[in-house]
Amino acid sequence: MTFIRNRWYVAGWDGEVGNKPISRKICGEPIVMYRKLDGSVVAMRDACPHRLLPLSMGIREGDNIRCKYHGMLIGPDGTPEEMPLVNERVNKKVCTPSYAVAEKYRYVWVWIGDQTKADEGKIPDFWPCDKENWVFDGGYMRVECDYRLFIDNLMDLTHETYVHAGSIGQKELMESPLETSVDGDKVTLSRWMPNISPPPFWRDALQQDVPVDRWQICEFIEPCSVNIDVGVSPVSEGDTLDSHDSGVRGFVIDSMTPETENTTHYFWGMARNFRIDDQGLTERIRAGQDNIFHEDIEVLEGQQKSIADNPDMTLRVLSIDSGGAHARRIITRLMEAENG
Amino acid sequence: MTFIRNRWYVAGWDGEVGNKPISRKICGEPIVMYRKLDGSVVAMRDACPHRLLPLSMGIREGDNIRCKYHGMLIGPDGTPEEMPLVNERVNKKVCTPSYAVAEKYRYVWVWIGDQTKADEGKIPDFWPCDKENWVFDGGYMRVECDYRLFIDNLMDLTHETYVHAGSIGQKELMESPLETSVDGDKVTLSRWMPNISPPPFWRDALQQDVPVDRWQICEFIEPCSVNIDVGVSPVSEGDTLDSHDSGVRGFVIDSMTPETENTTHYFWGMARNFRIDDQGLTERIRAGQDNIFHEDIEVLEGQQKSIADNPDMTLRVLSIDSGGAHARRIITRLMEAENG
Amino acid sequence: MTFIRNRWYVAGWDGEVGNKPISRKICGEPIVMYRKLDGSVVAMRDACPHRLLPLSMGIREGDNIRCKYHGMLIGPDGTPEEMPLVNERVNKKVCTPSYAVAEKYRYVWVWIGDQTKADEGKIPDFWPCDKENWVFDGGYMRVECDYRLFIDNLMDLTHETYVHAGSIGQKELMESPLETSVDGDKVTLSRWMPNISPPPFWRDALQQDVPVDRWQICEFIEPCSVNIDVGVSPVSEGDTLDSHDSGVRGFVIDSMTPETENTTHYFWGMARNFRIDDQGLTERIRAGQDNIFHEDIEVLEGQQKSIADNPDMTLRVLSIDSGGAHARRIITRLMEAENG
Repeated sequence: MTFIRNRWYVAGWDGEVGNKPISRKICGEPIVMYRKLDGSVVAMRDACPHRLLPLSMGIREGDNIRCKYHGMLIGPDGTPEEMPLVNERVNKKVCTPSYAVAEKYRYVWVWIGDQTKADEGKIPDFWPCDKENWVFDGGYMRVECDYRLFIDNLMDLTHETYVHAGSIGQKELMESPLETSVDGDKVTLSRWMPNISPPPFWRDALQQDVPVDRWQICEFIEPCSVNIDVGVSPVSEGDTLDSHDSGVRGFVIDSMTPETENTTHYFWGMARNFRIDDQGLTERIRAGQDNIFHEDIEVLEGQQKSIADNPDMTLRVLSIDSGGAHARRIITRLMEAENG
Repeated sequence: MTFIRNRWYVAGWDGEVGNKPISRKICGEPIVMYRKLDGSVVAMRDACPHRLLPLSMGIREGDNIRCKYHGMLIGPDGTPEEMPLVNERVNKKVCTPSYAVAEKYRYVWVWIGDQTKADEGKIPDFWPCDKENWVFDGGYMRVECDYRLFIDNLMDLTHETYVHAGSIGQKELMESPLETSVDGDKVTLSRWMPNISPPPFWRDALQQDVPVDRWQICEFIEPCSVNIDVGVSPVSEGDTLDSHDSGVRGFVIDSMTPETENTTHYFWGMARNFRIDDQGLTERIRAGQDNIFHEDIEVLEGQQKSIADNPDMTLRVLSIDSGGAHARRIITRLMEAENG
Repeated sequence: MTFIRNRWYVAGWDGEVGNKPISRKICGEPIVMYRKLDGSVVAMRDACPHRLLPLSMGIREGDNIRCKYHGMLIGPDGTPEEMPLVNERVNKKVCTPSYAVAEKYRYVWVWIGDQTKADEGKIPDFWPCDKENWVFDGGYMRVECDYRLFIDNLMDLTHETYVHAGSIGQKELMESPLETSVDGDKVTLSRWMPNISPPPFWRDALQQDVPVDRWQICEFIEPCSVNIDVGVSPVSEGDTLDSHDSGVRGFVIDSMTPETENTTHYFWGMARNFRIDDQGLTERIRAGQDNIFHEDIEVLEGQQKSIADNPDMTLRVLSIDSGGAHARRIITRLMEAENG
């Protein structure tokens, strides 16, 4: 096992889950999700408790789902409402596991592991995703790599220069020092670039061409998210690394939900506090992120294959990898704590 | 191992096996079959005893087959007639396993397991397939599931309502009680529907629109067949469940030969005693069955994948599954007896 | 393990390796190869020593290669020239394995195993490939079989009759006796056909239609090559099996480098001493060999699958297989010696 189980995991975008059942494997468990008539989301094991046919092949009836094989009618809690024979006594013990679900920050979250421990208060804090005067949008990709390789990738911005040479990589980013700090189960990487000329994207966002202070702050949030605070403010605003909410600001929001030990659901997006009603800008940002993340995926899938092909070699940890290394140590410690 | 070995298995339709060798894996063993000049069928392991090239890649010579690699000429009994070097002494010990073959009921049957025990008397009784004034035809499909899931499917007619909602499923079928009986190694499921209005297929077959008695009798015949006696007779004929040979009658004939532990050769067809010279009707029945069985295959392959994906869940046996459960117990008992 | 490790293996044709990195797995090890500015070839493990991304995805800089992920610059010896952070101290211990390389006989050879034992003197003797007044050309195919099945194939010319029935197979070849001899780690199979009429290919090569002596001499050269001396000379020249360098002569040059235990890189060609400046003839020979070797591959891949499908059967050794059997014994003995 390479993941912590008793956690909320992003299982889908709010727009992905509707009346029609969809199936997605989370932490190795096949899960079917759909919305009830009241709009709330149901998640249960994607297998009829009778003969294990995927419930996602079934037929929706009210808030229930009827198995396509023998017609057992399964309620949103995973227990039968009707048995295959119409007048047979309903046996609630013949049931499929169900999962606690929450909707927050435009995501559908599913609690894997011990359901008695599900508590919405434990959903990670993605505050820019639902703060007033901010807007949040993004996309989804399935990636053939261990989710921890993806965390390594996002907790290190050095790779931008080479992986994204044709898009966002630029030499300037290499010239300011990075600081790493660990606080409990959080890891933070920060870079403060005072009094520089803003690059085109940010000048356009700021709608001024003045000297700016620029920041990049990556935060690993267990079990599998990395959110990156990015932006610029005019030098005249007097912002600092610790206090920087003038100018224009965005958060790159990344959640790498394990599908299996070697495959990952990647949910990505950007929350921003500038030109929030400009839907065209929202779409251009999403298209730009989609391009960039495909560059990461090419590298991550190549790396995953190479690890399997070179069993005599090991991943080395250099100074630039300290963010990812701290994140992996936290994951390992939390997994060990969970397994007693 | 999930199958009984010392048994006759359907290996092909009579029309599938001709002069040209065909290869089919039965109970995990690759078998090449072809017809000799006298029309009889040869079955042997599909591997040259010399360097194991599939004999099905070879060249037919008279009743023999010459290996495409070094030209060893193999006779119908699996022993060499000529060695690779023309004048080399023929060594009959360098041979490939051969299989007892029988042709009966339009099927080519192959005896797997201990060849000294092959006895044509042990071929299951599919009497409607060669009875006078009956006609029999059908088709073949390869299915990615354990053959026992297919037996479960056919020993339970409840699934028709949901799996075949668009074709043969109808509510009426759910209203009459089913009876299950076990007699030695046979399992029988019967349903008698007295004095009902015939559905379109049967009214058309009967060529009268009168009240009928209708029956469905499923019989599991080890190791892997399920034949279903179906039909209607006018109420005035006075038929009963035990004696019902008036009116129009058909048998759905199903053999699920294991290819491997997780894949199945499905040979299906219908024998009938009405309008037996109507070749157009024969073709329409075959096309109809082909449609319906594709609906089953979608379910069976989904179920097989789901069983692998949900290792913590088990198949539950409800009352409707008693036919299949009995059949599985018989298979297990016969396998254990075989293995001593 | 099914191969000897401390050996030179053909890893590519001279024309295949250029400025752009190419990746090829040899004896299970992924290797990246490219040419330096001076034209010499570099071979190292195709994995960055930092995070294992294939170096073949990287960017060439001078004689070095820069990893596409974090930009570590790796020199031709597998050690870093620059770390990912520009001013970080270079740690030469963070390195990837490199391989001794030689170029000889138009091939790029790579030494697998203990690099301290690499010695160009140990490259097998393919003298016709670089002898004055000879010309050598050929091609490459990847084959899904154990390389030893391919050695069996080439150390037995009986198969020509059946596998190559449509191309080079002919009955005449079966009529002269074969002689097998073993001398240390070499195995030789010879066939001398005195005073026969030359077949079309050789009559065309000889540019005379006179009675000829014809020869075929297969030599297994460990670890994985089989070179075949073929040709004809006019009877009047008085050649013998031991001394035959009149008339026209060619060598079929075959190296079967293991990619993995079940897949093989097949490098094949022909060296000849007649009409050596006729480039059209060179191309026709290459096209002819390409056709013929595809016939072998069909058989070899069928054989490999059949071996897996028939675990209860074993490869039999008949008299025609003695060449391959001797070669396999030599390989086994050398592997055992290597493993102590």
